[in-house]
Amino acid sequence: MKKFDQQQIDQILKKRFFIAQSAHIYGGVSGLYDLGPPGLSVKTNILTLWRKHFVLEEDMLEIETTTMLPYDVLKASGHVDKFCDILVFDEVTGDCFRADHLVSDALEKLPSTEGITEDLQRVDCMGCQEIDEVILKYNIKSILGNKLSKSQQFNLMFGTQIGYKGDQTMFLRPETAQGQFLNFKKLYEYNNGKLPFASASIGKAYRNEISPRSGLIRVREFDQAEIEHFVLAEEKDHPKFGTVKEVKLKFIKEVGTEEITLGEALERKIVCNETIGYYIGRTALFLIDLGIDRELLRFRQHKKEEMAHYAKDCWDAEIYTSYGWIECVGIADRSCYDLKCHEGASKVDLRCKKKLSHPKEVEEWVLKLDKKEWGAKLRNRFSALMEMVNGFTQEYIEQNISSSEEKKNYLNVKFDGHVISFECSKVKNKVFVENIIPDVIEPSFGVGRILYALLEHSFYLREDLRPVFKFKPVIAPIQCAIGYLIHFNEFDEHILKIKRFLTDNGLVVHVNERSCSIGRKYSSCDELGIPFFITFDPDFLKDNMVTIRERDSMQQIRVEVEKCSSIVLEYIKGLSKWN
Amino acid sequence: MKKFDQQQIDQILKKRFFIAQSAHIYGGVSGLYDLGPPGLSVKTNILTLWRKHFVLEEDMLEIETTTMLPYDVLKASGHVDKFCDILVFDEVTGDCFRADHLVSDALEKLPSTEGITEDLQRVDCMGCQEIDEVILKYNIKSILGNKLSKSQQFNLMFGTQIGYKGDQTMFLRPETAQGQFLNFKKLYEYNNGKLPFASASIGKAYRNEISPRSGLIRVREFDQAEIEHFVLAEEKDHPKFGTVKEVKLKFIKEVGTEEITLGEALERKIVCNETIGYYIGRTALFLIDLGIDRELLRFRQHKKEEMAHYAKDCWDAEIYTSYGWIECVGIADRSCYDLKCHEGASKVDLRCKKKLSHPKEVEEWVLKLDKKEWGAKLRNRFSALMEMVNGFTQEYIEQNISSSEEKKNYLNVKFDGHVISFECSKVKNKVFVENIIPDVIEPSFGVGRILYALLEHSFYLREDLRPVFKFKPVIAPIQCAIGYLIHFNEFDEHILKIKRFLTDNGLVVHVNERSCSIGRKYSSCDELGIPFFITFDPDFLKDNMVTIRERDSMQQIRVEVEKCSSIVLEYIKGLSKWN
Repeated sequence: MKKFDQQQIDQILKKRFFIAQSAHIYGGVSGLYDLGPPGLSVKTNILTLWRKHFVLEEDMLEIETTTMLPYDVLKASGHVDKFCDILVFDEVTGDCFRADHLVSDALEKLPSTEGITEDLQRVDCMGCQEIDEVILKYNIKSILGNKLSKSQQFNLMFGTQIGYKGDQTMFLRPETAQGQFLNFKKLYEYNNGKLPFASASIGKAYRNEISPRSGLIRVREFDQAEIEHFVLAEEKDHPKFGTVKEVKLKFIKEVGTEEITLGEALERKIVCNETIGYYIGRTALFLIDLGIDRELLRFRQHKKEEMAHYAKDCWDAEIYTSYGWIECVGIADRSCYDLKCHEGASKVDLRCKKKLSHPKEVEEWVLKLDKKEWGAKLRNRFSALMEMVNGFTQEYIEQNISSSEEKKNYLNVKFDGHVISFECSKVKNKVFVENIIPDVIEPSFGVGRILYALLEHSFYLREDLRPVFKFKPVIAPIQCAIGYLIHFNEFDEHILKIKRFLTDNGLVVHVNERSCSIGRKYSSCDELGIPFFITFDPDFLKDNMVTIRERDSMQQIRVEVEKCSSIVLEYIKGLSKWN
Repeated sequence: MKKFDQQQIDQILKKRFFIAQSAHIYGGVSGLYDLGPPGLSVKTNILTLWRKHFVLEEDMLEIETTTMLPYDVLKASGHVDKFCDILVFDEVTGDCFRADHLVSDALEKLPSTEGITEDLQRVDCMGCQEIDEVILKYNIKSILGNKLSKSQQFNLMFGTQIGYKGDQTMFLRPETAQGQFLNFKKLYEYNNGKLPFASASIGKAYRNEISPRSGLIRVREFDQAEIEHFVLAEEKDHPKFGTVKEVKLKFIKEVGTEEITLGEALERKIVCNETIGYYIGRTALFLIDLGIDRELLRFRQHKKEEMAHYAKDCWDAEIYTSYGWIECVGIADRSCYDLKCHEGASKVDLRCKKKLSHPKEVEEWVLKLDKKEWGAKLRNRFSALMEMVNGFTQEYIEQNISSSEEKKNYLNVKFDGHVISFECSKVKNKVFVENIIPDVIEPSFGVGRILYALLEHSFYLREDLRPVFKFKPVIAPIQCAIGYLIHFNEFDEHILKIKRFLTDNGLVVHVNERSCSIGRKYSSCDELGIPFFITFDPDFLKDNMVTIRERDSMQQIRVEVEKCSSIVLEYIKGLSKWN
């Protein structure tokens, strides 16, 4: 397997301000990183490609939802109860460890017997009780050699309070997905009531990691780019599966690794439906397009016990880096788990309509309210009340209706501290559709991890050991640099003109004004992965020619200054090839 | 002044999913909004223009920093102590009010005497004591008529805890600026040690508003696009001021409003330096470019007492909307306040170097450490320690040096729970530079407010009262729609071809497949502000012609299908004009 020099890469990333630890002048906070100009630029380029490759190509509905979500939402989604790590403590020092890490490390040091291998494979899926049993069985100690406490669950969400009372708990979202589920009904309407469709969202998510190590791989605040593809459970064929069926990939299931086409994987039921298969294929094409080495990419299916609480099937796109194989994209079939949870907890109908072959007659509850009275009382919150009530499912109304001597049938609704009484009556309707909660297939991209893997895969050393990033032009933080051997005033107007032309064509251009040798200027640009460098030298004053130097071949061509910008533009757009 | 129908606009924004209240199916959270596909698209277009107009045009260094910051950072910046609202409580019900809002509302209802007008103007700048005095003086009651409590400060930051111990307080950042200040030294290095330069950052900021009303104007989670222009205090001339000096704007100071050019404003010292003036001009051009009505834009200088705790001078770009004049951009001279605070608190030198006309000799402390011992102990945290220590100012070392019998001069440094002893010795150096903390001029854009103002300014009703958004093509969420009167299979390949061509040219295209009248299709696209609509009708089968309809004139032209995409592209790129 390819070797990466992690220390050397990290050093360059820091030196050239690709990344920096957050609040580093205060000693830093582990698991929090800032992106400097080149790091941010590469990330932005990755996201621009992502948006083109997925959102625009498939007409996805991109939305942006808040990073803060109320307790009720994350209670319903299962995150309050299940988004946890298991911790153990050193009974002497009080130091805290992630139980799965500690147990894995300990078992890996033991002679590998069948029993130990089996336990090792299961560590990720163990609950507190099993962890305690394994610790006892192998007599595992803390890294200082002390006795360990009983294990305990620790929730990984960051909590905060909203408003002045301090009694309304909010969480920083653990995934962007929930915001998309909460808006499902609006998305479905925006899509004119048609299924399947996909929504997408790019944004921050948070995870209170216990002891983040591993640089950009395990952080507490990160970018997710997530797609939620809503589709009826029995309709998971995909019309465009044919476009990816010849894509050959490494698949790893519990039984072992195979390199086969997606078409074969589907046929042999390694991949269980066309929609999951299509997204696996598109994900692979996207990653390879960015510059990820295809030999260092594989798709691994989750073991049953390893899957998140919401998932029915899950594939990880794993990329090999100096940290080993790391999960960069998760493609999960979440079934109808989330929408069902939110429908149950919010009492709002989250179903879509499927045409019936024969219409049928049903009786439905209709709710009425004194709008004048409550409109005046609730003012601008009135429409939020009505929206909520209009979303009630028939089941919910049925279960919660009351009647008294004075009032026949009524439903009491709690809202903003009021109890509001709605009159209920039953009405006969003929229906032509069935209401169904759709399934959702979710490709979820960890942007920071992809960024880091791409940095490693792009990094190399020249024979003289000078470092280079071989970014594709579309990924490079800066596409072209302009400089000179020695400065002459005559250069300036040309430099400005070249810069204006390339900038107007959407490129990022850097004018290198440092007073150092041209060799050092080239090295400095190589460290940022800038693919082209236009150089003015004193001969320019005689022949009006400049030199274009290409980063990886280090070859140079001499061209007329008037033509150099369009030549560079053609190389960058891939319209002509170097050599 | 122009009238806006707020209710009607809000209704369309909600109906067409420009915006939605966050977690609306759970009753919503006030002050938190999600952006649906058209709302997000308009916002993204605003930010793309912003990046072009500011970051690329001025070679700013764009970075992205974490939304979570440690307590120490915000204590040093003054936010822990001063980023507060003053609250009063109804003594009977316990209801809470923002004191400035309550007092203003009460005073506005009183007959306007000189004393009342004066108090009214000062409400924004009052401390707790003054608020209590005013409440007593005018006998102000809660909105229910009850007695009010003594006023109290309420900090507007959202706090959370990081790690498992719950003892490390973090805040969600109240502004992106702090992340830029924390990285000042790295930015300065990246810029090869040259001043002035500007950094920029786009990202979320948070503010725990007490009782957010006013829709998108006053929210708890919002996007900021901030520029920090670092410059020496005595060098605030700007080489490009000449490019904006003829721009005519409405200026409002305590004395009144005037419409004059920026050049005149500078001459008459209404604006105090060229750099502030340049950013005022560029901001105005940017807002007008987006589609903000220039008649509804003015620049207002803050009163001294009204300025944020860090500001020396501040101008707001105010835009008139249905909520009145609202602050959308703040352009502040923060002087060296922030860098000085962080240097003091972090002990890290945040100075830049200014060449001396004559070199001078100085004695400086140099620190030494047993690197082997501490490298082994601290492992991957060792470089963070060295970075911190290398940043210590001479003053700090001087003040904290100790000596004992065994050790001569040493400095104890606390780091990650260790106390680490550095050996200190004095060394003579000849210096050619002076170390200075630069000032910073900060244009800070409230993206959500600009978005909302732009939506209002773009909205109008046709004579038949159908609503339209007159977005410029570069702002419109979708640039072109394609549809038909009745569907024929022959259309499909052409529709796909047009869509592919326009998408490849960077436009967003929507194929309208709804089965409704063409009139309704047009209205539906007008509500999203789509500027062009290409229609196929049955005649196409005979003549291969389609109709292009322009949104605002509602005029239509009939063109050959092969040419229609390039014609639309020319209109959208502004290369030809619709007459």
